[in-house]
Amino acid sequence: MCTAATYKTKDFYFGRTLDYEFSYGDEITITPRNFPFKFRHTNECNSHFAMIGMAHIADGYPLYYDAMNEKGLCMAGLNFVRNAVYFEPKNGKENIAQFEFIPYILSHCDSVLQARKKLENLNITNTQFSDKLPCAQLHWIISDKDESLTVESTIDGLKVYDNPVGVLTNNPPFDIQMFMLNNYMSLSPKQPENNFGKSAELTTYSRGMGAIGLPGDLSSASRFAKVAFTKLNSVSGDSESESVSQFFHILGSVDQQRGCCEVAEGKYEITLYTSCCNADKGIYYYTTYNNHQICAVDMHKTDLDMAELTAYTPITEGKVLFQN
Amino acid sequence: MCTAATYKTKDFYFGRTLDYEFSYGDEITITPRNFPFKFRHTNECNSHFAMIGMAHIADGYPLYYDAMNEKGLCMAGLNFVRNAVYFEPKNGKENIAQFEFIPYILSHCDSVLQARKKLENLNITNTQFSDKLPCAQLHWIISDKDESLTVESTIDGLKVYDNPVGVLTNNPPFDIQMFMLNNYMSLSPKQPENNFGKSAELTTYSRGMGAIGLPGDLSSASRFAKVAFTKLNSVSGDSESESVSQFFHILGSVDQQRGCCEVAEGKYEITLYTSCCNADKGIYYYTTYNNHQICAVDMHKTDLDMAELTAYTPITEGKVLFQN
Amino acid sequence: MCTAATYKTKDFYFGRTLDYEFSYGDEITITPRNFPFKFRHTNECNSHFAMIGMAHIADGYPLYYDAMNEKGLCMAGLNFVRNAVYFEPKNGKENIAQFEFIPYILSHCDSVLQARKKLENLNITNTQFSDKLPCAQLHWIISDKDESLTVESTIDGLKVYDNPVGVLTNNPPFDIQMFMLNNYMSLSPKQPENNFGKSAELTTYSRGMGAIGLPGDLSSASRFAKVAFTKLNSVSGDSESESVSQFFHILGSVDQQRGCCEVAEGKYEITLYTSCCNADKGIYYYTTYNNHQICAVDMHKTDLDMAELTAYTPITEGKVLFQN
Amino acid sequence: MCTAATYKTKDFYFGRTLDYEFSYGDEITITPRNFPFKFRHTNECNSHFAMIGMAHIADGYPLYYDAMNEKGLCMAGLNFVRNAVYFEPKNGKENIAQFEFIPYILSHCDSVLQARKKLENLNITNTQFSDKLPCAQLHWIISDKDESLTVESTIDGLKVYDNPVGVLTNNPPFDIQMFMLNNYMSLSPKQPENNFGKSAELTTYSRGMGAIGLPGDLSSASRFAKVAFTKLNSVSGDSESESVSQFFHILGSVDQQRGCCEVAEGKYEITLYTSCCNADKGIYYYTTYNNHQICAVDMHKTDLDMAELTAYTPITEGKVLFQN
Repeated sequence: MCTAATYKTKDFYFGRTLDYEFSYGDEITITPRNFPFKFRHTNECNSHFAMIGMAHIADGYPLYYDAMNEKGLCMAGLNFVRNAVYFEPKNGKENIAQFEFIPYILSHCDSVLQARKKLENLNITNTQFSDKLPCAQLHWIISDKDESLTVESTIDGLKVYDNPVGVLTNNPPFDIQMFMLNNYMSLSPKQPENNFGKSAELTTYSRGMGAIGLPGDLSSASRFAKVAFTKLNSVSGDSESESVSQFFHILGSVDQQRGCCEVAEGKYEITLYTSCCNADKGIYYYTTYNNHQICAVDMHKTDLDMAELTAYTPITEGKVLFQN
Repeated sequence: MCTAATYKTKDFYFGRTLDYEFSYGDEITITPRNFPFKFRHTNECNSHFAMIGMAHIADGYPLYYDAMNEKGLCMAGLNFVRNAVYFEPKNGKENIAQFEFIPYILSHCDSVLQARKKLENLNITNTQFSDKLPCAQLHWIISDKDESLTVESTIDGLKVYDNPVGVLTNNPPFDIQMFMLNNYMSLSPKQPENNFGKSAELTTYSRGMGAIGLPGDLSSASRFAKVAFTKLNSVSGDSESESVSQFFHILGSVDQQRGCCEVAEGKYEITLYTSCCNADKGIYYYTTYNNHQICAVDMHKTDLDMAELTAYTPITEGKVLFQN
Repeated sequence: MCTAATYKTKDFYFGRTLDYEFSYGDEITITPRNFPFKFRHTNECNSHFAMIGMAHIADGYPLYYDAMNEKGLCMAGLNFVRNAVYFEPKNGKENIAQFEFIPYILSHCDSVLQARKKLENLNITNTQFSDKLPCAQLHWIISDKDESLTVESTIDGLKVYDNPVGVLTNNPPFDIQMFMLNNYMSLSPKQPENNFGKSAELTTYSRGMGAIGLPGDLSSASRFAKVAFTKLNSVSGDSESESVSQFFHILGSVDQQRGCCEVAEGKYEITLYTSCCNADKGIYYYTTYNNHQICAVDMHKTDLDMAELTAYTPITEGKVLFQN
Repeated sequence: MCTAATYKTKDFYFGRTLDYEFSYGDEITITPRNFPFKFRHTNECNSHFAMIGMAHIADGYPLYYDAMNEKGLCMAGLNFVRNAVYFEPKNGKENIAQFEFIPYILSHCDSVLQARKKLENLNITNTQFSDKLPCAQLHWIISDKDESLTVESTIDGLKVYDNPVGVLTNNPPFDIQMFMLNNYMSLSPKQPENNFGKSAELTTYSRGMGAIGLPGDLSSASRFAKVAFTKLNSVSGDSESESVSQFFHILGSVDQQRGCCEVAEGKYEITLYTSCCNADKGIYYYTTYNNHQICAVDMHKTDLDMAELTAYTPITEGKVLFQN
C-alpha cells in the first residue's frame, strides 16, 4: 500500500512511498500563496502558505497525496481501507472534505502545534470531490522537524495520535500498530548475546543477527516494523546529498517489487514513486519504480506569489549514465 | 555481507551487492582477451575470453569480486567467513590460487557446463596474492542463462552444488541455506486463506499478507530467504530498461542501510555497491550507496583484443536531476 | 499469566490455567443455592444458582478465580494489568464490586444470553473486598455451550466482546488479541504446499510444518495464538475421559514451565493449576504443577440446597502409580 | 514425530515422547542380565548389564524405543526419515543390525565414554529383524549424567556428535539442528530491554516477552528449539517428585495434541507416551496421551539375574482422583 517516514539530520526530511497497481496520473505540483482554495463547507482561502507535493490535478484542483508547505510542515495521506469513516458536515465544527484535508492544514498551519489546534474542532466530511471521484479511505501523518501526528477518522470519530516513531503505513489503526511494535523491542543493530542457555555454545554465524525476528514481507504491519527499525537506527552524514540518499535507503527498506504482492490474477502492487521532502529548503525529491535516479523540484525556483498551479510530470523512465 | 542473484527475461542478468564497512578501492575493470594471466601453479594464459567486472587492481592484477565474460558466463565471490578452507597445492590437481579463481574460470569457460568440468579436478589453494593480501574467505556463484552453481572449498574439500534458486549470500554453507528455505515454502505473493480455524473469522487487513513469516533482518540466512522470494516471484517487462530496473529492485530487497548492522562501535556495514551484468550484451550496470542512478560500462565499447586492463572508477556520488 | 479455553464434544468443557509465582491459597469451593450473597451496592441474594470453582475464601466469602454454575454457565477472571479500570458506583447502574462479578453473574444467569442482558446496565466498581485485598486487575470470559463473551472494564467503560474462538489470555485488550490472530490465518495442521517458487524444489522435511510461524513463547499474545490454534483444531472422542484428557492437552499447550518466565531475580511464574469444568455434569477437574493426575470434585455429590460453602484443598503433590 | 531430553538435579533424568498416529503395541520391558542377546553379525552376549525401557516385543526379542541400563546409561531412537542410511555388514567392523543398536550399547557400556569407544568401529547394518519388520529409519541420543551423544548413520557413514544441549528431535541432521539454534540465541526467560530505538517508548505488556521468536508449531526443528529452551532454563527442586514433575513439564512443552498435526485425511500424530528414566535409581516413569498420571516401573524390584524378559503393559487410561 504505502509507507511514510521522517528523518532528521541538519535539515528535516519527510516522504513516502506510494504503492499501488496503477497510477492515476500524478504531478509534482506547486500551489503558490494566492491560489484560491474554495473549501466546500468553510471560508475560501485566497492567501495562504505555498506548498509542493505530489498531486492528481482534477479540474484545476490539486488532490495532494503528500506535500509540504513553505514553513516546513509536511503531510501525507495513506490508505486506511475499511477503517476510514468520514461524516456529514456537523454544526459548530470546522467541516473539511476528505480531499481538502491536506490543502487545508498546509494552507493554515506553520507547525504540528498549529495543526493540532486546528484538529481540535475539525470534522472530516464525506463530501466527494465529484461524482466520479469517491472519497479515498485514508489516514494521515503530519510532521515538522519537532514532532509527528497521526490523524484517523473512524467510526469513533476523529483521533489524533502522537507519532513518536515518525512512520506510518496502513491498517490496522495507529494505536494497534504502535502496540505491535512492542513485540520487536529486543531487536538491535548490534550482535546478540547468548541468553538462550549457557551450555548451548551458540554463535553468531553472520553479521546483522541482532535483528532476527524483524519481518520482511510487504503487509502493512510488517512494513511498519521494518521501516521503523530502519529509520530509528539510521546513521548518515548531515550533508544534503548524504541525508537525501539515506532517506531513500530508509524507504527502500519497504520497497514493493513487482511480483511480490499480487492483488488480482496477474496484477501486482509496486512502489510507483518514493518522495523525500527537504522541509527546510522546500525541495521535493522523488524516484519512480523505473527511474532510480533521484529527481527534484525546488518550490523556491517558482514565483510563490502567483495564483496558478505549477506542475511537473514525473520522469518515470531512468536514464543510464554510461561511462564509456 | 553480500548478496548475489540472477534474473532472466529476454536477456540474462547477474549481479550482487557488496556489503561492508569500507571499500578497498574498486574499479569496473575490463580484462581484454590478450591480457596475460600468469597463474601461480598452472599454465600461463595469454589468450582467453574477455571479461568485465568489479575489481581491486593490485600490481596490475584484477582481483575481481564479480565479473562476466564475453560468452555470458558470470561469477561472484561472497564472504564465507570461518567456513572457507583452502589447501596447499596438490599433485595431479589443477591448482588455482583463491584470488585467481574468477579469472581462471572466466578465461576458460563459456558456460556453467564447461565450468563444471573444470571444477572436477580443481584445487583452490591458499596461495596469497602478496604478503599484504591474505586470502579472502569466500564462496562463489557461477551462472549462465541456463543454470547456476555454488562452489565452496571447506574442510571437507571442494563442493559444487547446483543452485536452483540462483541466489547466494554468506554463511551457512549452501546446503544448509537451501535446507532452511523449506521453512518458508508456504509463503506466497497471493493473499492467504484462513486455515487456522473456520470459527475464527479471520480476515486479511492488508495486501501482501501471504508472505508473513518472510524475514527482514540483515543476517545472511534472512537475506537469502528474502532475496530468493523476491527473485523467484519477480515479474517485469523484458525490455532492457525494465529488466535492469527490476534487477535493482530484487537486490534492493536486501539493501543494507547505514545504522542497521553495527559491526563495531559506531561502524556499520552498508551496501557499498550493487551490480547488474547483462550477460548477453556485456554491459556492467551498478549503483553505489550514495549514487542511486544506474551507471554502466559496456565492455564492447573497448577493444577486447588489447593486452591491457581498462578501468573505470565508480561514480559514488549521485547527481540529482532537477526539473526546475 | 493465565489462559482460559472452551471445548465442546458431547458435553461442554471450560477451564483455565492460573500462572503465577506463588499461590494465595486456593480451594475448590462449592457455593450452594442458599448461601447468602450480600452484594455491596445491590440487593442481597439468598437464593440463587449453585456454583463450583477455584476460590480464595476470605472471611467466609468465595473470591472465585473461575467457576461454573449448575446451569452450565462458566466464567473466569484473568489478569489484565494496566488495562483494567474500575469505577465508583454510579446512579442508575447495577453496581457490582470487581470481586463480586463472578458470584453475581453465576448466581443470576443460566446462559451467556442472560449474562449479556445483565451486562447492559452493569458497572464494575473499584470497591475493595477489604483494606488488605485491593482490586485484582482482571478481564473475564463468560461461556456456555453455545457462545463465549469477553468482558473488559477499561478507561473507556465496560466492553463486552463476542469471543468466537473461546479463548482468553491477558494483555492486550481482546479486540487487539483477535486482530493479531489475523497474522496467523494461513497456519494449518496440514502440510504446506510450495508457494514460494516452483523452481525452488522445496520439501517438507518433517510432519507438522503447516503451522510454522505459530509462536511458542509464554507472552500473553503468543499463548493466545498457540492455544487458539490448538483448541480450534482439536480432535477427540466425545467420551468423558477422552474429552477431559483432550482439554488438558489443549491448556497444556501453553503450560508455563518453571524457569522459562523469570519475573524477578530467581522468581518464576509457573502454571500453578489447570482446571476443566464439565459444564453439563457439574464436575470440576484440575491438575497442579506437581500433580499431573487429574483430580475432581463433583458439585452434585454435595447438598446444593445448603447455605454453607464446601471447600476442598487441592491435592498439589502427585502420587506415582507404581506397577511393580 | 518424537522428542528426547535430559535433565539433571540430584539424579539424572532421561526420557522422550513418542509421537505417532498409532501404537505398535509397546510394553515397559526389563531385560535382565542373563537374557541371551544373539546378535546377527557379532558374538552372542549372555551376560550383560540389565536394562529397562519401552519396547515392542517380537518373537521374544525386545525392540527398544528407549531404555536405560543399570549403570545409568540411557539411549533412545527417534525418527530420522529419508536421512537414515544403513549398510551391508563390512569386514573388520563391529556390525550391528539397526534393531540391535540399543540392546548392544546398553549391554556393553556403562557410560557415554564407553559407548563412544564402541562407536569407533561400529557399522549399523540394514539387516531386518524379520521379513515383516523393515528397518526403522532412526537416529539416536546416548546420555549419561555427564554428557550426551547423537549418533546418525547416513549416506556419508556413521556420525557421532557431541550433544551439548541434551535434546533430540527428528530431521534435519543434528549438525543442522544445532546450527539453526543460533537463530534463537538472544531469547531469554528474562524480560527484554528496548534496543529497537530509544524514541519508540516501547514497553513490555506481558510477562514472558523475552522469548518472543521461540517457535510453537510441531515441526521437528521447532520442537528442537522449544524443548532446548525449556530444558536449558528449567529450574526445580532436586527431590525425586519435583525433578520428575519438572521433567514431564519439559517434554510437555512439545506435546502433540490430537488434531494439530494431520498426517493423512483425518489421521493425526499425537504424543502416544512420554517417558522419564531416573538413571540413578533405575525407575522408568511414563504417561500416555489419555493417562496424565505418572506411572512407573522400578527395575530393581525385579530379579535382574534372570534370563527372561519382564514386561508391563502401559496403563493408557487415566483414573480420575475424585475428592468427593
